[in-house]
Amino acid sequence: MKSKDAVVLLSGGLDSATVLAIAAEAGHACHALSMDYGQRHRTELKAAERVAKSLGAAEHKVIRIGLDAIGGSALTDDRIAVPEQPSDAIPVTYVPARNTVLLSVALGWAEVLGATDIFIGVNAVDYSGYPDCRPAFIAAFERLARLATKAGVAGSRFRVHAPLIELTKAEIIREGARLGVDYGLTVSCYQADEDGCACGRCDSCRLRAAGFRAAGIEDPTRYR
Amino acid sequence: MKSKDAVVLLSGGLDSATVLAIAAEAGHACHALSMDYGQRHRTELKAAERVAKSLGAAEHKVIRIGLDAIGGSALTDDRIAVPEQPSDAIPVTYVPARNTVLLSVALGWAEVLGATDIFIGVNAVDYSGYPDCRPAFIAAFERLARLATKAGVAGSRFRVHAPLIELTKAEIIREGARLGVDYGLTVSCYQADEDGCACGRCDSCRLRAAGFRAAGIEDPTRYR
Repeated sequence: MKSKDAVVLLSGGLDSATVLAIAAEAGHACHALSMDYGQRHRTELKAAERVAKSLGAAEHKVIRIGLDAIGGSALTDDRIAVPEQPSDAIPVTYVPARNTVLLSVALGWAEVLGATDIFIGVNAVDYSGYPDCRPAFIAAFERLARLATKAGVAGSRFRVHAPLIELTKAEIIREGARLGVDYGLTVSCYQADEDGCACGRCDSCRLRAAGFRAAGIEDPTRYR
Repeated sequence: MKSKDAVVLLSGGLDSATVLAIAAEAGHACHALSMDYGQRHRTELKAAERVAKSLGAAEHKVIRIGLDAIGGSALTDDRIAVPEQPSDAIPVTYVPARNTVLLSVALGWAEVLGATDIFIGVNAVDYSGYPDCRPAFIAAFERLARLATKAGVAGSRFRVHAPLIELTKAEIIREGARLGVDYGLTVSCYQADEDGCACGRCDSCRLRAAGFRAAGIEDPTRYR
């Protein structure tokens, strides 16, 4: 029998909140997983807790992963400034191997739960050039998961669902609105303050605001 | 120019100490990485520090990864006893997706360092049936690494070196002895005490003791 349980990676941002709503609508009992990886915008962990509760997750765990010890990103290293101008290159907010680490921990929890479904809110359209947001990356992780686990050896086929991967930000927002996601609970800003108020200037804020405009939906973001 | 830097996963046990010596002999500046994942045998983290120092690692980092929050293994969950009898099945000391998580973090650090070489002490011979110790798993991770990272997108080819993968425990010990590894500094026991003294009864202790006997080398393990 297939387990209804699913592990859903939940950052507290707009995309992963939408994914949680999609996984719940598909009938999964959602085990939401957030990572405290030393990110600047730790207020997003509080947002994740609010979102998990509001969307009826079966449980929510925050796991500490000390990626701040390796540095290399504006999101984990205070000495690197968050950029406020768009760039064609992969930006300094890229956290080395972050999605690989996140999916690995999600895989471990899925195996403990006896689940084979993992959901992640990566997006290849508005993805800011992050390599670990592309379909080829997701497919490679699924192959790895079958080889990496006791469950995989026993025949389980892990599925990494990335339902937003081909959607624009406006399409994501329309889908979330249809599913009743309260985007006022989410925080996207890379340098949000302790109350979750956004800067309105970083890449992530710009993409989010443009998404609400394009979707024709009122933006509930609180700016400071 | 190829970087001489390498990330070496170092648990504090016999195998990874040998791998560190192999990587150093190959001319790498070794960045040793240990994980505090809530393991029972935390004394191995102290052993890792001693080993890194004795083998001249360029640096040694211990990163906290909260795998104890997901449980599912005798090594991270106090409610599951460490077995003292051999078994044909994958044992309860298997930590779900552990090597995937370890390699992911190593990959992130390698990218920050501008390194493409990662060393891990997995072994497919005396591997106790852990799925994430097989050559196919290592190969799948290398494929993933190329897709997962900014460096991979830019053309870097990450190599995951698993120099022990086809060796018996006795062969590993002979190689380490040749390279001057002081195995008295290492801790293999799944339930070592605070001073690093071994139980002599768990799977890991049995494999280690048999390895020294087969290698014809005196076993420096301190038993309690």
